This record gives sequence, structure tokens and C-alpha cells, in this order.
Amino acid sequence: MVASVPPPAAGPLPYHLLCLLRDRGATSRAELAGQLGDPRARVLGEIDALIAAGLVREAGPAASRGGRRSTLVELSPDLRFAAVDLGASSIDVEITDGRLEPVAGYSEPAEIRSGPKAVLQRLGEILAKLKADGAYQRLQAIGIGVPGPVSYRDGVPVSPPIMPGWDRYPVRDVLAREHACPVVVDNDVNIMAIGERHGGVAHSVDNLLFLKLGTGIGCGIYLGGEVYRGTDGCAGDIGHIQLDGHGQVCACGNVGCLEAVFSGAALTRDALAAARAGTSPALAERLAAGSPVSAQDVADGAAEGDATCVRLIRDGGHQVGTVLAGLVSFINPSMIVVGGGLAGLGHVLLAEIRSVVYRRSLPLATGNLPIVMSELGPRAGVVGAAVLASDLAYGRQER
Amino acid sequence: MVASVPPPAAGPLPYHLLCLLRDRGATSRAELAGQLGDPRARVLGEIDALIAAGLVREAGPAASRGGRRSTLVELSPDLRFAAVDLGASSIDVEITDGRLEPVAGYSEPAEIRSGPKAVLQRLGEILAKLKADGAYQRLQAIGIGVPGPVSYRDGVPVSPPIMPGWDRYPVRDVLAREHACPVVVDNDVNIMAIGERHGGVAHSVDNLLFLKLGTGIGCGIYLGGEVYRGTDGCAGDIGHIQLDGHGQVCACGNVGCLEAVFSGAALTRDALAAARAGTSPALAERLAAGSPVSAQDVADGAAEGDATCVRLIRDGGHQVGTVLAGLVSFINPSMIVVGGGLAGLGHVLLAEIRSVVYRRSLPLATGNLPIVMSELGPRAGVVGAAVLASDLAYGRQER
Repeated sequence: MVASVPPPAAGPLPYHLLCLLRDRGATSRAELAGQLGDPRARVLGEIDALIAAGLVREAGPAASRGGRRSTLVELSPDLRFAAVDLGASSIDVEITDGRLEPVAGYSEPAEIRSGPKAVLQRLGEILAKLKADGAYQRLQAIGIGVPGPVSYRDGVPVSPPIMPGWDRYPVRDVLAREHACPVVVDNDVNIMAIGERHGGVAHSVDNLLFLKLGTGIGCGIYLGGEVYRGTDGCAGDIGHIQLDGHGQVCACGNVGCLEAVFSGAALTRDALAAARAGTSPALAERLAAGSPVSAQDVADGAAEGDATCVRLIRDGGHQVGTVLAGLVSFINPSMIVVGGGLAGLGHVLLAEIRSVVYRRSLPLATGNLPIVMSELGPRAGVVGAAVLASDLAYGRQER
Repeated sequence: MVASVPPPAAGPLPYHLLCLLRDRGATSRAELAGQLGDPRARVLGEIDALIAAGLVREAGPAASRGGRRSTLVELSPDLRFAAVDLGASSIDVEITDGRLEPVAGYSEPAEIRSGPKAVLQRLGEILAKLKADGAYQRLQAIGIGVPGPVSYRDGVPVSPPIMPGWDRYPVRDVLAREHACPVVVDNDVNIMAIGERHGGVAHSVDNLLFLKLGTGIGCGIYLGGEVYRGTDGCAGDIGHIQLDGHGQVCACGNVGCLEAVFSGAALTRDALAAARAGTSPALAERLAAGSPVSAQDVADGAAEGDATCVRLIRDGGHQVGTVLAGLVSFINPSMIVVGGGLAGLGHVLLAEIRSVVYRRSLPLATGNLPIVMSELGPRAGVVGAAVLASDLAYGRQER
């Protein structure tokens, strides 16, 4: 995972100290020593070393608890991470401070299909602009998500179906050289799951499924509190699970895949058909107005009570729920979070997904299973990328 | 996991030492010290402590490698574990030595439905008989698998559907009190997966799915080299994943579950129907001879070229493969092992399962994915139960 530039702090104790300061903010030396299992003198010594390294600074006296006053320490205000979420047709960038609070952000459309050189060059320009604007002087680390399978260890995409030219392209090493900092590369759905677990509704959940319903469909997986990426980095690729052996032909060449039946792309197709057939007054109106029919139009139509729009969403929720019910029986998760663009279809979608999962899965597996909407929405990806970047810079060691 | 009687050795170093001796047999002190990351003096001190505790003994001089001769040490020959596999209608018991080699075994039919008191009393009688026969003087630990979900931490079955009277029955504590040794309780499919990974075809595989095809269907899961049991202990319950919304009604109340379509019970039902309808000469002959039609008859009929028997197996393999293909896309495993009674249907079944998985799952996930038959067969369960018992006695700490 570590690029050629070594992380500033290695070993578990500094990592745990820096994470505590990341997640809790300014904390007294005494409290830090109390929180960690290590001997007090070692903790205090490490804090001094982190101050000397410029990662941590003193932040005044702590509130008195009787006895000698402890001093507060906090992360250096100069720490900066770049968090990048490359989508099929978008770049989202956030610059954060050491506590992962955003200090600047930028988004623009970008076609991943234009290849790694063009996309990473554009990313370089965006980062240079943010630097020129004063968002950072130097980066501690970069975290980046890409819309395809990734070899996490090697920092490269692996056989990504919608990313021509990216197969085994050394994304991590190219960015690390260019920006002189360590870089971590992961799948876009994984970074959303990481974001939601760090700063969203799934805070610290052990066994989490994060379902991304967007143009495509994928699933981020946390098991035992760790991201699970699979043997080849393609775990969670549930968009091609077969629902119907005689259904829609999928781009992958099989028939009846979940993505072919319900996804952003499939919904746009079905909505356009409904608009043309005149079965949906709401959608026909959009089409007549000359605007392209989108998933948002279906959501709006459903909110206006258009029966076809409601049916499209419920049918889709049913299909997603059917796949999810099997996964729940298989993996017995503690929570399911639904995110991605189609999460905008709202509670009609969620109600249908819940209904199928609660009816179909083993009662023991669903008794205490919340199925909820993402809290972070479109920011989930960059939040997760920032978490990965900080974990790397703060010296996390992979098991 | 630990019962009231503490394990004889606690802490990671003694555990690793004992596991090395379990898995490699007699080993020189020098080699043991070399194998472990700990300081040499500490390792040698721990070996002496284990000898003093009666768990390890000296076994003569090691082969000379120049310099001072090291002495061999090995596990005490008196160590004994009891490994128990409770099935829906059977009890299998093995007594093993410290290296998990069987020293005695016993199997008999037993209905799990007769309840915990009757079944555990019978287990007590079997163990007493084995003791009287000299198989052991005292047990270091007992490992036991039961055919239903288990709270591994609490050592109790949890809402097991085919085990009336067992819900939250304190199996671990009752056995621990009775036999004055620590006890570990797990699901029957998990112990088969553990057995196959320890002593079978899946040796040390990181991400393993062990598919048990028996009267019912279940899946044992290893992820990152650890058994994954799920939030409520019911991970791997794939028998009720829906294949067909208009299919066979299942005992669980839903329709089209994998188990309702293909399993030991479903195959017996379909074979009997084929025998009665006269579509299968081979099965009709068995029925006419007055014997009950079984899965083995279907296997025999297929071997004789009976087309209906071949079709029953291939249809079943197709259904199993369809569910498995989805799980492969989701979890991206390193290996799939097929075991349980229906594994006796042989290569026709395996070929069909492979065909569907290799066609349906993501190519990246199947490129290096072996799908193979269990090597341990009906012994997989007791081997896994013995591994769990020894892990407990040797001081493994759960993460």
C-alpha cells in the first residue's frame, strides 16, 4: 500500500495517537495516555516525537481536573490530505485538514473513458489550482477511488470494465511521484463505504454492506470492522448477479443481471420507454418539453403521484431487495446503507427494498438489521478517500 | 468462548508453539526458536514451561546440523480432544491426540429433534464408553458442531430451525461442567469448513467457501484466514436464497428457496416422483424392489446411464451454481469446496456447478478460482471440531 515516499509516522502507537486526535480533536496528554493501553511514559514520549515531527502541536492548558494541569495537544493545522473520487463521468476533489474537515473542494464532469493520462493530468491541474488558491502547501497523502476493481496492494486498477486504458495503470506510483506524497488507491464503492462508516450513519458498525445504486450497482463490504476487498479486489460486484434467466440483456453479455434490470442506466431506459408509450403522463411531459428523461424525473413524477413512476421505483426496489435478501442470508450483516445517485428515489425505493429483505431473509439475520439511507450522500466517496489517505499518512499497518 | 475451566496455556507464544508442534510433529528447540519472531530465550523458556505443565515432552536429540545438538520436543502423547459432529440425524465422535490424529471414533444415528437433554446424555454415554475402552483418561477440550445457528461467543444454539428445544440451551457450559474441560460450540457447516482448511484440500486458503450439500444446504466462510460467522452467528445460511419466485414451497414458508429446489430432501422427493411416473427405469426398479429411493440411487442410476437421473443431478447443479455465481461475484473467494452427502453425486454435479459459475460470475473473480470436491468427506466435521478444541486448549485468543 505504501508508495515510495514513506509515511511520516510508522508503527501502531503513533497511528493510534494520531487517529485519536483526528477523530476527537484537541485532547489532553493525560487523556491520551489514559486512552491507550501503552505505558504512560511511552505515550508521552511519542507525543513529543510527533510534536518534533511537526504533526502535532500544543494547544494550551486542559481544563483542570484537580492535581497538576495537563496540556492539550492537537493535530498541526497545516496537515492536508487530497481526497479524490473518480466516477464514470465525474471528478470530485476535496482538500481536508488533518481532522478530515474540508478546506476546499472542486467537482467537474470528466469521462473516465478518456483514459488515465488525460484524467490524471486534469486531476493534476485541479490540484495545482487548489494549491495556488492556498488550500494547501504540501500534501501528507492522497486517497483516490476509481470506478472499477483495484489491486489495493499494488495501487492499480485490474481489468476494469468501464475504464479503457486503465488496466494495471500505476495510478498510485504516478500520483506519488508527481505529488511527492504517499497515495492509496481503492474502488469507488469501497471509499463510499469507508466514508459512511467513518462520518456517516454506519459509524463503527462491524459488518456493513454499503449498497451503491448509481449508473451501475456495487457493494462496499466491511466485515469484522475491516474493509473486505476479496481475493482479486473485486468483491462487492453485485451488479451482475442474475435475477432472471430470460430478462434484459446486460452489457456484460449475460442476461437478467441486476444492473440490466435496475440501475441508473436501466431506469433511464425504462423511463424513456414509458414516456414514449404514454403510460406515464409525468414522463411524457418531460419528453415533450424536449429534456432528456432522467432518474430525477422518475423521482419527481412519483412525488407528484404518477403511477408509472411509482411502479418503476417499486419494481426496481423489489429487484434490489431480492439480490440483497440473498446477500443478507449469506453474510448476516449488522447494517445496510443505501447510497449512490438512485438513493434520491427516496423512501418508496427504501420501503420496497426493506419489504423484500425482511420477508425473504432468515428472521435471525434481519431481527436487528437496519436498512437505511446514506447520510453523507454524494460526499461519501471523498470522505472515505480522505480516511484512507490519513490512515496511510498516520502509519496504519495493514493486516 | 472460554468455559469456566481455563485453558492450560494462555497468551500467543505458547499457542503458536503448541500449534507448530500440532501441525509439524516433533521439532527441535532450535527450529522452534527460529520459526517464531519472539526472542530465542523467551521461546526456550516457554518450551520449558510447557514441559513442566505436561503439555510437551522431550523426544531425543535432533539430527545434527553442526554445532551443538538441539533436542527434539513434541506434544505429550497423553493429550486428548473430543470432536463431536451432531447432525440432523447422526452423532459422530472422534477422540484425537494432541496432533489431532484419531485414536478412537464412534458414530450412530440420533435425532437432533429429540432435544438437548436426550442427545447430550447419549453423547455422555458414548464418551464414557470411549473412556472405559481406554481412548482417553482426561480431555483437554471438547469441540462440538450442531446443525443450526450458534452464538459462538456464548456457546449456545440460537433460534435453530430444525432443533426444537435447543434454542439458547447452554451446550458449552453443560458439557464443560460434565467433562471438566473447556468446550467450544460451532455450527456444523463451519466445523466442516475448518476441517477442510486444516487437513483437506483447502489447506491455508485465505478466502474459502465450503458448500455443504446435504439434507439441507449451508456454506462455511473463511475470509482473510479467519472463520466468518456473521453478526448473529447465522452467516452462510444460503439454503433459503430464492431461485424462483414461482417455484417449490419451502419448509421456511417462502417459495423457490435453493433447498426446496435442490437438496438431499428435494432430490429424494424428485427421485421418488420420477420412479412413480416411470420416467426413470433405474429409479422405478429400486422402487419396485421395495427399497426407499435415495440420493445414492440417483447417483447409481446416473452412473448406469439413466437419463432422468443424469438430468436430476444436472438440474440440481445448475441451481446450486446459480446461487454460487452470485456469491462469487459478491465475495470474490480464493477457493470453493463442495462437501456434504450430495457431494457423492460426483463429477456430473461438479461439472454443472462449475459451468454455471464460470459462465455467470465476473471473469476477474473466476480466473484463478478452483471449485473442487471435499477431500475429507464425512470426516470434515469431526476434524474441524478437533481443530477448534485444540485451538481453545492451546490458548488461541479470538480477535
